[in-house]
Amino acid sequence: MKIRIGIFGYGNLGRGVEAAIRQNKDMELVAVFTRRAPALVKTLFPDTTVLPADDVLEMKGKIDVMILCGGSATDLPVQTPMLAEHFNVVDSFDTHACIPQHYENVDRAAKAGGRVGIISVGWDPGMFSLARLLAGAILPEGEAYTFWGPGVSQGHSDAIRRIDGVLDAKQYTVPVDAALAAVRAGEVPQLTVREKHTRECFVVAREGADLARIEKEIKEMPNYFADYDTTVTFVSAEELAEKHSGIPHGGRVIRTGRTGVDGTHRHVVEYSLKLDSNPEFTASVLVAYARAAYRLHAEHVTGCRTVLDIAPTYISANTPAELRESLL
Amino acid sequence: MKIRIGIFGYGNLGRGVEAAIRQNKDMELVAVFTRRAPALVKTLFPDTTVLPADDVLEMKGKIDVMILCGGSATDLPVQTPMLAEHFNVVDSFDTHACIPQHYENVDRAAKAGGRVGIISVGWDPGMFSLARLLAGAILPEGEAYTFWGPGVSQGHSDAIRRIDGVLDAKQYTVPVDAALAAVRAGEVPQLTVREKHTRECFVVAREGADLARIEKEIKEMPNYFADYDTTVTFVSAEELAEKHSGIPHGGRVIRTGRTGVDGTHRHVVEYSLKLDSNPEFTASVLVAYARAAYRLHAEHVTGCRTVLDIAPTYISANTPAELRESLL
Repeated sequence: MKIRIGIFGYGNLGRGVEAAIRQNKDMELVAVFTRRAPALVKTLFPDTTVLPADDVLEMKGKIDVMILCGGSATDLPVQTPMLAEHFNVVDSFDTHACIPQHYENVDRAAKAGGRVGIISVGWDPGMFSLARLLAGAILPEGEAYTFWGPGVSQGHSDAIRRIDGVLDAKQYTVPVDAALAAVRAGEVPQLTVREKHTRECFVVAREGADLARIEKEIKEMPNYFADYDTTVTFVSAEELAEKHSGIPHGGRVIRTGRTGVDGTHRHVVEYSLKLDSNPEFTASVLVAYARAAYRLHAEHVTGCRTVLDIAPTYISANTPAELRESLL
Repeated sequence: MKIRIGIFGYGNLGRGVEAAIRQNKDMELVAVFTRRAPALVKTLFPDTTVLPADDVLEMKGKIDVMILCGGSATDLPVQTPMLAEHFNVVDSFDTHACIPQHYENVDRAAKAGGRVGIISVGWDPGMFSLARLLAGAILPEGEAYTFWGPGVSQGHSDAIRRIDGVLDAKQYTVPVDAALAAVRAGEVPQLTVREKHTRECFVVAREGADLARIEKEIKEMPNYFADYDTTVTFVSAEELAEKHSGIPHGGRVIRTGRTGVDGTHRHVVEYSLKLDSNPEFTASVLVAYARAAYRLHAEHVTGCRTVLDIAPTYISANTPAELRESLL
């Protein structure tokens, strides 16, 4: 009997989940739920069932874990608690400051329904959070740094697209090599945002637009670009499509710490990701934790959990004995 | 009330635990247990209590977690099950092929005594095992590689020291750059042991010894060196003491995998350690998991566990709510 999965929301992340489920022999996709007209949704695989989001409760009892693939801004804060009362759920909620509140909301709903909700699953938050926890507990006298990229920031790309005269844009977040080297050398530097990352923008402007004004507006945009060294390169729509159509990302969490009587010995723990597709990797993490949600529910656990609270064996398709034999 | 720790066995690892406990404000060291005459043992800190190993059971009820710091060859297979009946225990048992048997022995003893035993804690087995599990569950269609070093292999250094004419020696295991690059590029290479690591030996020979014979004996030693590209450098005792007295180590676990409909997108997950002191880092991991043993016991869990079975929050001094707030 396979773990029956539902996908709620069908964009890049939902497609990633649809593909990832096929890589896990112990799972099957029951249906994709969408707010669009199901007949108009083109799925990756022709045999994927598409149902209206409004009818989701009719599938109660027929889906073991619902993977939510909506956005953190407006979708997940509403959808995850709503669905957690009826299904075990997994989401990738990533608005850092709101995670404690989201946790409480999902916890209450999941307990009311006797379900498990796992929130903020992905790589950051997610695997990076786990890397920070593990290294921090092992090296309490130390400092952790997170570098993102090289990779595409969707939020920054969108911000550029909203500027008058811009037709399209792609923004890459790039870690500064010198900062990385200083951290790895155990120098425990104090780094400003400018010293940690640069921002590289590739912009398609409308014909005849004032390029100097666009560049200035980008570089001076508060929060998004003003605090960074930003480069702006104008390209044609063809070049953007050809060279910048992917959604790669990645990054690294580095913790350095000292041990011994006088802290004489230095240690560097580094966890890094290099991802061709940000949404597909996030989807793969969601699918692995859907397995955990299923198993925790089978053990009568209820309420909210995060990747920090879940024993690693729960996300593997192998048994604990097999894992001991092959991985330890 | 602090977590009361005992150290059973007092070599490099035991000293590392003694130092690491001071970095964790929620813990205190009750005593070091040794088979030597306690009066002859010089501890890192003058106020450390040293007791005879034979009297360990007299401390039952006065120690929350016993951290075993003996060797995997003969000490731990006997000591961990023996002590697990009376104390919560943590060890760093690392004889891969014997871990399932050791697990069974510790599980039986810990259950009989109503205790928790956490075995094979450290970095490999330990954090590297965890890295393999996580990346493997997330990227099921992929391949994992482990590279060790650059670092000192105690076993290989000992093997050289047993050769006639050798006064002292230090052996470094070094990963091959080309192999690392191929793995990171996602080429999924099939690598022989020779292609993955080289072995660099620094040897102090007795005056007048036949250096060519020693070098030949090293390079042709089965299992230890014959399958590797090995370099032998003869040095003076002074140079060995000056340049090769440390016990650095480290390594990395790299998993590459593919996602998407046709596996078009490649991902690289890498977990790496660069350690100035192998025993002190291992000790720091042991101490963090001692916290988990204490908490699991408080929840009336009994039996054997490994790092794979333990929810990450258990090893942190912070509460789950604090961790959600600061790490997610």
